[in-house]
Amino acid sequence: MSEEPIPAPTQDRPWEAIDDHLEASELSKAAKVLDGLPGEEQRLAMAHLSGRSQATLVESLTPENAAELLERLPEAQAADILEDMSPEAAADVVEALPEETGADFLREMRAIESEALLAELDDPDEADNLRELTSYQWDTAGGLMTHAYAAFSETSQVGDVLNELSEEAERYADMDVQYVYVTDSEGLLRGVLRLRDLVLTPRSRPVAEIMLQDPVHVSVEDDFEKLRNTFEERNYVGLPVVAPNGLLLGAVTQKAVREATAEHQTEDYLHSAGILGGEELRSMPMLARCGRRLAWLAPNIVLNIVAASVIAVYEDTLQAVIALAVFLPIVSDMSGCSGNQAVAVSIRELTLGLIRPTEFLRIVWKEGILGMINGFVLGCILGTLAAIWKDNIYLGLVIGGALFLNTILSVLLGGCVPLFLKRLKVDPALASGPILTTCTDMCGFFLVLNLASAVLSKLT
Amino acid sequence: MSEEPIPAPTQDRPWEAIDDHLEASELSKAAKVLDGLPGEEQRLAMAHLSGRSQATLVESLTPENAAELLERLPEAQAADILEDMSPEAAADVVEALPEETGADFLREMRAIESEALLAELDDPDEADNLRELTSYQWDTAGGLMTHAYAAFSETSQVGDVLNELSEEAERYADMDVQYVYVTDSEGLLRGVLRLRDLVLTPRSRPVAEIMLQDPVHVSVEDDFEKLRNTFEERNYVGLPVVAPNGLLLGAVTQKAVREATAEHQTEDYLHSAGILGGEELRSMPMLARCGRRLAWLAPNIVLNIVAASVIAVYEDTLQAVIALAVFLPIVSDMSGCSGNQAVAVSIRELTLGLIRPTEFLRIVWKEGILGMINGFVLGCILGTLAAIWKDNIYLGLVIGGALFLNTILSVLLGGCVPLFLKRLKVDPALASGPILTTCTDMCGFFLVLNLASAVLSKLT
Repeated sequence: MSEEPIPAPTQDRPWEAIDDHLEASELSKAAKVLDGLPGEEQRLAMAHLSGRSQATLVESLTPENAAELLERLPEAQAADILEDMSPEAAADVVEALPEETGADFLREMRAIESEALLAELDDPDEADNLRELTSYQWDTAGGLMTHAYAAFSETSQVGDVLNELSEEAERYADMDVQYVYVTDSEGLLRGVLRLRDLVLTPRSRPVAEIMLQDPVHVSVEDDFEKLRNTFEERNYVGLPVVAPNGLLLGAVTQKAVREATAEHQTEDYLHSAGILGGEELRSMPMLARCGRRLAWLAPNIVLNIVAASVIAVYEDTLQAVIALAVFLPIVSDMSGCSGNQAVAVSIRELTLGLIRPTEFLRIVWKEGILGMINGFVLGCILGTLAAIWKDNIYLGLVIGGALFLNTILSVLLGGCVPLFLKRLKVDPALASGPILTTCTDMCGFFLVLNLASAVLSKLT
Repeated sequence: MSEEPIPAPTQDRPWEAIDDHLEASELSKAAKVLDGLPGEEQRLAMAHLSGRSQATLVESLTPENAAELLERLPEAQAADILEDMSPEAAADVVEALPEETGADFLREMRAIESEALLAELDDPDEADNLRELTSYQWDTAGGLMTHAYAAFSETSQVGDVLNELSEEAERYADMDVQYVYVTDSEGLLRGVLRLRDLVLTPRSRPVAEIMLQDPVHVSVEDDFEKLRNTFEERNYVGLPVVAPNGLLLGAVTQKAVREATAEHQTEDYLHSAGILGGEELRSMPMLARCGRRLAWLAPNIVLNIVAASVIAVYEDTLQAVIALAVFLPIVSDMSGCSGNQAVAVSIRELTLGLIRPTEFLRIVWKEGILGMINGFVLGCILGTLAAIWKDNIYLGLVIGGALFLNTILSVLLGGCVPLFLKRLKVDPALASGPILTTCTDMCGFFLVLNLASAVLSKLT
């Protein structure tokens, strides 16, 4: 490889220089351009390369540099890159990653590719550890735990622990050790040692005498809600994770739980906008993006047709008073907006634990009154405009009345549907929107056209 | 106060017992019921009390217990409670809170109430500190920083620092000290000391000799994006915050930046659903909730009317082919869904720093092709159904063609609008939805009715 100086990349679009080098098979030059960029620019550049180029580039880095780079990227992108790399090269990168991060990436990969990768790991124990971690749901104690913790047998002396900690200082520095766990000869969790107690105790005392017994711990199967509550109760930095039989399996940190909370919020947002199957990035293959978006749109078209079929039933009324056609989408859209606000408040209150999924009455009460007030205000505005436009007070009453009733209905529905879905264990962020829109559209069309049919003689 | 035993509250709805006690002015009994609940149940109970009851209850707690309770509640709720309390009682609670948390609550309060509270603080320095913190935007370095850090003069010796740290161990324990900052006699930041260097250095050496010079720091005015990038670059636990003149003002922790990220994501979600002015909780006063929701709905009704006015222009066409009325909402709603997916992907890519707000061409390219594919699929489905229903191939072509074109248009718009708003410094999550919906509705109506007018003779 020649060592001629690399020309400075176009400051503005460094990914073009990288792509040019990759096309010319000048891998090390491409890697150097990437290396010369600050962190956020590296992420920007990677997002602008094709999936193939990303994988080629990462393969040309040292495993350590590749691992550092992947940690900066969105999980979905990192997993795609690992899938596109050769299993050997991908395995080298995973070995250079912190174990939990590796497990996060593996969990997002297709089973066949992640198995191929695991088979290439040099250390079979590491592969078993990763297999174990990926076997848990990402947001449970098992999925969020790390194997990087310090544990000692209850027969150890304080001096043993201190010696081991200082000899292996570097390894433990990575682990962010705040507590040391104590197990019995079977590996069952027996207690927890605070570092400060270790330092202040004569070195010959057995750790069993100074450990905190019956320490607070979480079960490997604890779901995210339980975990979040446990960490909120008191400000724990980390907690030991045990199997149902009491075996110490790992440790889960406050930081991991905090990150999972942020991820749940992101997921809520993406789901409510109709983005399924995890994060979508524009660097992903086009057909995969089309398919994932269609997976959401296709059921929606069915729901839309069902709702609009109400209009077909009332074709005669519409034919008689064609002005109604102008108000059909206004009434249904406005009620949809009101209902969506109620959905968002319910999802937030569920997430924050401010409401129980059984409290429908509270929603009916709190949203019902609000719906009457807002429905009245909006109904008056739209009804007045309709009456003035066609100089027909009855048209105003039909439109205003329909919007009033439909607003009440949609805030009630919008408030209750997330609770109902939560009880059915369906993700409220995902399904609330389509259910709500279909119902409010249908009812909106029905109300406008039915009220109009009732006073048809006054409208024509 | 009699000391008779408190009857166990109804396990299921403890807030009813609390409310009964409050109504009977049995404050300490109400407080005892609350105290006996686990953390998440306390939060649930508080969410079910009226604003007035919440304030009365918190006033009856010791300032320390009140502070602990408020820290568990959503910020908006805590701020409302402080507003409803007497300024003296609220000031006592704020004194018991960590300074940054107090500043967060004050920032959410109305100016008049927060000033009244600050005037009641016993320590004028504390009031000045809080005034300074609240003067910064919540998500800038100034807004996220804490005054709780350890700083020493560069003329100190290692021994001085160690003595002070151990004498004031309890105070520093709260601060989560990982680094000690070094300033000159003017208070300008000169260096940073690592705790481990302190421990390993003879106590008589001046700290100036072992400190890291020119330490990484952030400016008090740094915005959130800059801050997040700085912390991502390397895994800093905390960084010093300096004024433009180099004066050390505070410290900002990785934890604070992480929490701000989660808050931004929540804000994105709430804004996109039309919840303005911060979190809405159902325990807030009804009229305030109505008003905040209407503030979003009122401009929306105008936009909806503008969009629907297109239908009024084509009344004759509609009159001739009344079946079109069934498809108008389907075409506009389906395109709206497609556009919303593109909005969500753009907002995500902006948040993650995977795209620059200037890259419209990239969006046009990446969304345009996707829009053509998805528009074609959806157009074929809907067009076929329309053709079969009315046994008219032209109707199918009109409907299918309109949905095809409108899908392309809405993914392009949906992809670009957030970038455009970002450049205008308008929150994309807030404004993208209404802009997109108005445009896709208008264009959808126009396309269906205009295409139909063009082949009107074939449709009747």
